[in-house]
Amino acid sequence: MEIRNRVRLQPVAPGDVRLNDGFWTPRQEVNRRVTIPHQYRMCKETGRIDAFRLTWKPGDPNPPHIFWDSDVGKWIEAAAYTLATHPDPELERLVEEVVALVVGAQQPDGYLNTHYTVVEPDKRWTNLRDCHELYCAGHLIEGAVAHHQATGKRALLDALCRYADYIDSVFGVEPGKKRGYCGHPEIELALIKLYRATGNARYLRLAQYFVDERGRQPHYYDEEARARGEDPKTFWQTSYEYCQAHQPLREQREVVGHAVRAFYLYSGMADVAALTGDTELLAACRRLWDDATLRKMYVTGGVGPSKHNEGFTSAYDLPNETAYAETCAAIALVFFAQRMAQIEADSRYVDVLERALYNGVLSGVSLDGTKFFYVNPLASRGTHHRQEWFGCACCPPNLARLLASLGGYVYATAPGAVYVHLYVGSRARVQVGGQTVELTQETDYPWEGDGCLTVRPATPAQFALMLRVPGWCSRWTLRVNGRSVTAPVVRGYARLRRRWTAGDTVAWSFAMSVERVAAHPAVAADVGRVALQRGPLVYCLEGCDNPRVTALLLPVRSRLAARFDPRLMGGMVVVEGMAERVEAAGWQGRLYGPRSALQRETVRFKAVPYFAWDNRKPGAMVVWMPEA
Amino acid sequence: MEIRNRVRLQPVAPGDVRLNDGFWTPRQEVNRRVTIPHQYRMCKETGRIDAFRLTWKPGDPNPPHIFWDSDVGKWIEAAAYTLATHPDPELERLVEEVVALVVGAQQPDGYLNTHYTVVEPDKRWTNLRDCHELYCAGHLIEGAVAHHQATGKRALLDALCRYADYIDSVFGVEPGKKRGYCGHPEIELALIKLYRATGNARYLRLAQYFVDERGRQPHYYDEEARARGEDPKTFWQTSYEYCQAHQPLREQREVVGHAVRAFYLYSGMADVAALTGDTELLAACRRLWDDATLRKMYVTGGVGPSKHNEGFTSAYDLPNETAYAETCAAIALVFFAQRMAQIEADSRYVDVLERALYNGVLSGVSLDGTKFFYVNPLASRGTHHRQEWFGCACCPPNLARLLASLGGYVYATAPGAVYVHLYVGSRARVQVGGQTVELTQETDYPWEGDGCLTVRPATPAQFALMLRVPGWCSRWTLRVNGRSVTAPVVRGYARLRRRWTAGDTVAWSFAMSVERVAAHPAVAADVGRVALQRGPLVYCLEGCDNPRVTALLLPVRSRLAARFDPRLMGGMVVVEGMAERVEAAGWQGRLYGPRSALQRETVRFKAVPYFAWDNRKPGAMVVWMPEA
Repeated sequence: MEIRNRVRLQPVAPGDVRLNDGFWTPRQEVNRRVTIPHQYRMCKETGRIDAFRLTWKPGDPNPPHIFWDSDVGKWIEAAAYTLATHPDPELERLVEEVVALVVGAQQPDGYLNTHYTVVEPDKRWTNLRDCHELYCAGHLIEGAVAHHQATGKRALLDALCRYADYIDSVFGVEPGKKRGYCGHPEIELALIKLYRATGNARYLRLAQYFVDERGRQPHYYDEEARARGEDPKTFWQTSYEYCQAHQPLREQREVVGHAVRAFYLYSGMADVAALTGDTELLAACRRLWDDATLRKMYVTGGVGPSKHNEGFTSAYDLPNETAYAETCAAIALVFFAQRMAQIEADSRYVDVLERALYNGVLSGVSLDGTKFFYVNPLASRGTHHRQEWFGCACCPPNLARLLASLGGYVYATAPGAVYVHLYVGSRARVQVGGQTVELTQETDYPWEGDGCLTVRPATPAQFALMLRVPGWCSRWTLRVNGRSVTAPVVRGYARLRRRWTAGDTVAWSFAMSVERVAAHPAVAADVGRVALQRGPLVYCLEGCDNPRVTALLLPVRSRLAARFDPRLMGGMVVVEGMAERVEAAGWQGRLYGPRSALQRETVRFKAVPYFAWDNRKPGAMVVWMPEA
Repeated sequence: MEIRNRVRLQPVAPGDVRLNDGFWTPRQEVNRRVTIPHQYRMCKETGRIDAFRLTWKPGDPNPPHIFWDSDVGKWIEAAAYTLATHPDPELERLVEEVVALVVGAQQPDGYLNTHYTVVEPDKRWTNLRDCHELYCAGHLIEGAVAHHQATGKRALLDALCRYADYIDSVFGVEPGKKRGYCGHPEIELALIKLYRATGNARYLRLAQYFVDERGRQPHYYDEEARARGEDPKTFWQTSYEYCQAHQPLREQREVVGHAVRAFYLYSGMADVAALTGDTELLAACRRLWDDATLRKMYVTGGVGPSKHNEGFTSAYDLPNETAYAETCAAIALVFFAQRMAQIEADSRYVDVLERALYNGVLSGVSLDGTKFFYVNPLASRGTHHRQEWFGCACCPPNLARLLASLGGYVYATAPGAVYVHLYVGSRARVQVGGQTVELTQETDYPWEGDGCLTVRPATPAQFALMLRVPGWCSRWTLRVNGRSVTAPVVRGYARLRRRWTAGDTVAWSFAMSVERVAAHPAVAADVGRVALQRGPLVYCLEGCDNPRVTALLLPVRSRLAARFDPRLMGGMVVVEGMAERVEAAGWQGRLYGPRSALQRETVRFKAVPYFAWDNRKPGAMVVWMPEA
């Protein structure tokens, strides 16, 4: 294997970025103070943590479930990111307690999985297709890497290296090894993290193997099923498209199947492609990216419309009320977007990342940090609400780890350049031009499009500052040290190349107005409808603000105004205007009648950011309004 | 039990009405020549008919399923109605063969059920909630009554009387009897038919018992589940609302649960209420009717939006693409409507009957009579198609028996009056004013609103002719023997009371224009949308006539024209006009963009009757068009 790193940008690690942001800091604080402890309790109460004690015996209640380990791995990861920027002895104590349990559960040969160790010890590696065994390994690896980076401690990392070494001894093309790969991708991207954390190319090679082997004939899942005495045709999801194993990855042209699996897989695939210089594989990533984001993504960044496969159907099939749009799938899209952005240094990937982050991801958690959406529809009759936890609890800790690591999405570096991907108030230390540069970003984003970056190199230094021009913005200006400047835009980034001196400032102004957004005309569900967006935020109308909200139509020419309401859910910009409401008067005694009998009344409406819905009085919600 | 018949109208039996109609006669012919023989073959090939030989033994493949008997009962019923008006020795031979098998399967005690006799002989009457045992009895009874009326033969009727007598010995409030009732209602309405056919009040009393007992506490299904060693709480549908057994029927105020069960039940309930003068029960029927037809019915007459329970959700929840709207449910609504119409002599019931019949029922069968919809959505991406048969094959024979008995829905009589419910070319013999009156109706309905009835009493006679003024019609005129007349409208029927002489003619003209129909503003799915209707027919747009059909919008003021196309699917009136189509040009490379970037083109569109969709090139379909 040749290692030819094609990644243009290096992210600035979350540990090197401390948020100081009116929008995100309170959310990170809720995540740190409420959500992460809440999730520890849920993991504890449901038995997920104590499962690592390996005390379960046949006949006992509550056997460790096949995906429990992954929840604990994600919780460790979330807690570790938090500890990296916010030391917290109590949280650290909990983390070390859990880490000790995980390490203690490792078997002499390196194997580490609670379910198979105590519940089905003779079934290890017999059902990769359905049983999440390598998926759990991947999440424990991600947790271990984050834990090591946050604390410098090696116990968990070493344990997971031993596990990865063992996995490498089991799987591969070499004679005597199993040619398997996981039905739920995740280990691929985790092994890349392990490779980056350790420098051990064995993990990159193993990730490459998992990517290359997937979907080959004779099909491993067929053989594996037969070895279990099952007919492969009885696979409950019918097609291996469900787990993106229907054909080799480099031949895949369409995003299919389970959405979380898809984007975890594409993330690891992009990593492997970039790190090995595999241009064919990278071309497949680009094709799949385009199929996903140009044909199969909600305006919220939600992905995977169908409950049936928790995933994709056909192009442009984006029903609103029945949208599945799992929180984890939007998070997984963020992961894939981040990788593509670093590989290509192109803002279009970050535009999608931002769309998902501020809408279909953030909607996943309540403002108080204690309740979660698994499913994120774009319309509701008022019966859809967040829950404290789920039997399949993938989404809550996934949100926690993303929010805790948000700092890692803000900046990146390239030789001679610093990239600003996201507008988030923060202080960061970045390595550029051979030295450490301190960056201080101040902004009221996403409520306002203005902001300022103060640059503090240790000594004056020549480098380019690359500011992402958001895809939603059509008018913008820049000032350096108070003076208007023009800047060339390179792959979506305004490039300011100069010799920077400590205290230099760059101020930007991205004109942020309320936009009526339309969907591609092939999206049948949205024909004749518009959504409201301001900056990166998609808006929605809730019943508690708008009586009979589903009967509202938006006149094509009505004026839309944005207003900051400091008392609304901690302070939010609302969008207001006049709508027409179809009136029920005159419809007593009939369900259908002549169109001419419809009466409309002009009413004031108020829209709130989509992510914030279902935090007040339960009721109906609408994103796409029919036009009047 | 007091028998106080509150039924105002007596339907004219299908055997006394011979259709001679441009619209329905070809469909009845297809039903007779293609569908009924096709269904015989399907019943034969799948083992449903030979199941009555009772030769199945444990270990054999293909055990008789719990609902198979019902399909055979419905097939006998369909064939019998056909034989009543169209003698056919070959069909009669098949019917008698099947009848002999059914009769031969009866047990010495009168029991008659293939599944329980051979598959679970020790489980008889142990799971009324789930296992369709009395439901199958009901369909065999309906088949037996129709067979007797068509052929005058008694073998099957006698067998089913014995079975009903046995059932009556098992169920009831008397000590020693089970206080059960069927999870899938059907036996109630069947017992009423048996009562009417035999005059034996025992069957009316048994129907009354089943209606009265339903939903009482302590709950029979709870006790029955416990007797099986099951926890009643594990009921797979969670609530007894699924089978309308959550509370006593006379307390029920909302239509809930499985839609076919609901309307079969309400039909039997209306029969019992009317025949026993139970005004409280009749009030419940009226409430449920209103809830169903004013809050929970598609514009096609389809009912039950949800696949989950094959039934109802909440008021005004009428999603189009995911509409379940089972064919059987629309047929069951026809049954309930017919009963309410006869009880109340009010045209509003027939308006709904007609809406369902011409749209959501008739869509259930292909024009060639060989394929069937189980599910009738109001929008499709092009993936929904009729099938030859279903594992759960309730819909095909239900369609066959309804089409074969259509003559029975056209006329009714009351003392001194003849009612014309439906406009269908036909010759009928009705009993009114103490004599037989021959009626000859000529009409091009539903394509045109004109028609004529020639009245031929044996001798001149005084009676009222009651012509239904269709709910869709706002302008109409009448002529008697060529002369304009005015007529009072009584509960929706134009009353022409006079002394009729043989050869008198009544001509009507119901102005039939293309109407834009709107839904009640609470129907979120249809806000900002209109459907097209002309006469009783709801129209739809298909992809094969309209490229990119889901991107069409209908301008509020565009002119709509109806035109008879003699070459279209055997001759149909199409609706044409100009629509606006949102164009995909300019949307390359993006899925969402500014509303201002949408381009619209004016294009000609063509709509076809909803019932006829999916008979040509497969493609997308839309009923409710967004307005431009």
